[in-house]
Amino acid sequence: MAMSANTPHTLLLKNPSILKTSTSTTPAIHAFPITRATKPISITCSYSATAVTPPASASAQDRVFNFAAGPATLPENVLRKAESELYNWRGAGMSVMEMSHRGKEFLSIIQKAESDLRKLLDISDDYAVLFLQGGATTQFAGIPLNICKPEDPVDYIVTGSWGDKAFKEATKYCKPKVIWSGKSEKYTAIPSFDELDQNPNARYLHICANETIHGVEFKDYPTPKNKDALLIADMSSNFCSKPVDVSKFGIIYAGAQKNVGPSGVTIVIIRKDLIGNAQEITPVMLDYKIHADNNSLYNTPPCYGIYMCGLVFEDLLAQGGLVEVEKKNMKKAQILYDAIDESKGFYRCPVEKSVRSLMNVPFTLEKSELEAEFVKEAAKEKMVQLKGHRSVGGMRASIYNAMPLAGVEKLVAFMKDFQAKHG
Amino acid sequence: MAMSANTPHTLLLKNPSILKTSTSTTPAIHAFPITRATKPISITCSYSATAVTPPASASAQDRVFNFAAGPATLPENVLRKAESELYNWRGAGMSVMEMSHRGKEFLSIIQKAESDLRKLLDISDDYAVLFLQGGATTQFAGIPLNICKPEDPVDYIVTGSWGDKAFKEATKYCKPKVIWSGKSEKYTAIPSFDELDQNPNARYLHICANETIHGVEFKDYPTPKNKDALLIADMSSNFCSKPVDVSKFGIIYAGAQKNVGPSGVTIVIIRKDLIGNAQEITPVMLDYKIHADNNSLYNTPPCYGIYMCGLVFEDLLAQGGLVEVEKKNMKKAQILYDAIDESKGFYRCPVEKSVRSLMNVPFTLEKSELEAEFVKEAAKEKMVQLKGHRSVGGMRASIYNAMPLAGVEKLVAFMKDFQAKHG
Repeated sequence: MAMSANTPHTLLLKNPSILKTSTSTTPAIHAFPITRATKPISITCSYSATAVTPPASASAQDRVFNFAAGPATLPENVLRKAESELYNWRGAGMSVMEMSHRGKEFLSIIQKAESDLRKLLDISDDYAVLFLQGGATTQFAGIPLNICKPEDPVDYIVTGSWGDKAFKEATKYCKPKVIWSGKSEKYTAIPSFDELDQNPNARYLHICANETIHGVEFKDYPTPKNKDALLIADMSSNFCSKPVDVSKFGIIYAGAQKNVGPSGVTIVIIRKDLIGNAQEITPVMLDYKIHADNNSLYNTPPCYGIYMCGLVFEDLLAQGGLVEVEKKNMKKAQILYDAIDESKGFYRCPVEKSVRSLMNVPFTLEKSELEAEFVKEAAKEKMVQLKGHRSVGGMRASIYNAMPLAGVEKLVAFMKDFQAKHG
Repeated sequence: MAMSANTPHTLLLKNPSILKTSTSTTPAIHAFPITRATKPISITCSYSATAVTPPASASAQDRVFNFAAGPATLPENVLRKAESELYNWRGAGMSVMEMSHRGKEFLSIIQKAESDLRKLLDISDDYAVLFLQGGATTQFAGIPLNICKPEDPVDYIVTGSWGDKAFKEATKYCKPKVIWSGKSEKYTAIPSFDELDQNPNARYLHICANETIHGVEFKDYPTPKNKDALLIADMSSNFCSKPVDVSKFGIIYAGAQKNVGPSGVTIVIIRKDLIGNAQEITPVMLDYKIHADNNSLYNTPPCYGIYMCGLVFEDLLAQGGLVEVEKKNMKKAQILYDAIDESKGFYRCPVEKSVRSLMNVPFTLEKSELEAEFVKEAAKEKMVQLKGHRSVGGMRASIYNAMPLAGVEKLVAFMKDFQAKHG
C-alpha cells in the first residue's frame, strides 16, 4: 500500500497481536511510548515522504516454511528480537552492526554467547571456544596446519561430500588416508567402527558428524585406536541439535548457518592443550593460538553474526537445552521418515535406517519425472527449498532446530495429497 | 517502561515522525495496515506476554554519534531499510539471513551489490570483484600466496601498523622488503615517491592506502619501478570514500566494516589475469581462482553482510557517487582539522598536513591529563568511541562516509567548549 506525500493518515491495528513477540528473553526497549490509560486514545499521523516505512515488518502469516540446507530457517522469535533491536541495541544508541568490537557493549554480547554455548554443550574449561570466519572449509586446512607436522599420518572416514572435501584439503598439509569411504554405496551408510582399519600412528581421526547433502549422521562416535590420537568432527549441520559429549573430541567445528545463526560465523571448540603448535606456513588467521590468546578478537570478528548466534543460544536454553531440542528434532524426523517409509515406494529415502539424519532428509520419487512438479507445487503452498542438492538430485527437506513441527506436519500432509493425486 | 501481563494498554504516538524513514529507496512492506481515513481512530492493545516488544525500534533522537574506527557508524536510512526488511525480505517470506546462498533471491542481492560497486568505482571487466571473509588480515597471506613464488622479492611501504602487519605475514610466503618505514617518525608521514628504493625485480609494491590507527593517507599513488610489477593496496579504511582509478592497481582489498558495511565481509578487486597461480600450500579458501570461478559462492558466503554492503552501495550511488561522497568527506575533515589547528596548541594532530586522513583524525591534548575527561564528557553529549587506539593513546575521531556533517559539527562545538573550560 503506497502512501502519498503530505497526507494525514491514521493507523488502524486490525491485529494487535503483531505488537507482541513470543520471545521469552528480557523485555526490550519500547520505541513507542506506551501509557496505561484505560480508554482508547486517537492517533493521527502525517507523512511527508513518498517512501513510508513504519518501523515494523510483515506479519507472521507471510512467512514460508523454508527447508533450505543452509543458510536456513531461524527461530521466529529470534528474528523478531533482532528486528526490534536492529536500529538501537538496548539503548546503546547504535546497531550491533556499528559497535566497536572492543567496546563494552559488544564484549558483553560475545561473552554471553560463549557462556551460553558452554552451558548448552556443557563445555569444560579445558576447551577454548572460538568464533571465527571462513566456514568449515577454512578449518579443513586449519586443522592439519594446527595439529600436524607435514609428515604426520591422519585418518579420515568419508561418509559424504564434506568429509571428502576435508580429506582433500588435508593432503596439502599432512599425510591423510581415507580409511573408510561410503562412495561406492552413494554415501548412504556409516561404517561399523570395528571394521575400521585405523593407523596406530595417526595424529587424529576425522569424521563429518552429519553429511548435509547425503543425510547420513553418526549416532555414536568411533574411538581413535591410538590413545593419544584425537577425534575431530565437522558438526556444521547438526551442531547444537542434540547433546554431545564434548570431552570425547579434540576439536569440534561448525559453520553457524544451519542450526545456530546466519552464515559468516564458524565455531571451533578445541582442547586447550592442542593450541600453539601451528606449522610455520599457517596464515595468522588460521592459527588457533592467535584467536585463543585474543578471545576471538585478534582482528574484527563477524560481530553481527555472533550476536545472532547468541540470540539463538538464548532461545535453545529457554527451550530447556539440547535434551529438549533433540526430542523435538526426533519427533519431526520421525513423522517425515514414516511418511516416506509408509508410502509403499512412492517416496524413497536411500539412507540406511539406523543412520538417517535428524537434520537433512533426502528422498526421491519412484516416478522421478514428478519431482519438478513436487517442488513447484510445494512452493505454491509456501514450502520452499525442497530441491535436492545438484550433485544428487531428488528432494531434500532440511529440518533443523528452527523448523517448527507445524512445518514438517504441513509437508507430510502435502506429500500424502501429492501421492493421492499422482500415486 | 515495563509492561505488566494481561493489561489493556493504549498506544500514544508523541512523535509521528518515527513512522517515517529517510530512505530514498523503494517503498517497503507495511506491517501495519494503513488506511486513508481522515478522522482519527482509536487503538487499544491488549498484551498477554511480559516481554512486550512492538516490532519497531527506538527513535532517531536516541541515536549517538559513533566515532568508532570500525565497525563504525552506518547510514541511518540503511539501518531503517534493514530493520524494515529483516523479518521478511521484500515478500520472500523469510529474512535475508535465512536465504539459501544459491536461491534466486540471494543471487539477486549479491549480483546487485557487485554491479553497484562496479558503478561506484568504475571497475572494468578486466577485474574480478570477490566478496570474501576473514578481514584484510586474511589477505595479508592471500596476496603473496596467490601472486608470488616463495623466492619472489616484493616491496612494502610501511606507513603504519597495518602495513607492518601485512609485511610480516608476507615473510612466510615470499621475500618481502620494507623499502620505506615511517616508524621512526611514529607513522605520521607518507614518503615522497622519488626517494623510494624499489627493487626492480619486485613482483609487487604494497601500500596501506589509509592507516586507521595513525591517520595517514596516500593522496596519490606510487608507480612500481618494474613495469610488470603490480601496485597492491589495502584500502580497508578509505574504501569507497573517494574515487579511485582502479586500473592503476593489480589488487585492491578492504574489510567492509569501515565505510561500506558490517564486519565479516572482505572485498577483493583483482585483475583477472593475476588469478590462477596460487602456491600449492594455499588453503582453498585463500585461492582467488576458487572464488572467482564460483562468483564468491564456492562455499556459503557471509550473506547478510553482503546484503548490508549492497544497501550501502545503493545509498552511495543515490548520493551522487564517490565524487559527491568525497566532497562531503573533505568538508567534514576540514572543519575538524581546522578546529585542531586553530586551537593554539590546546589540541594537536601529529600527522603531516599534506597526508592527513579524511577518515581517521587522531589528536592529543596539550594537557594530556585531560584526555580521559574529554572522552567522558563527550560521551555524556552522545559522542562515543573517541578514545585513541591503545597503541598510540590520545583521541581519534573516525569520520567515515556515514558520519553526518552534524556529528562533526557537534564534536567541533564540544571541543571549543571544552577548551574554553580548560584552556
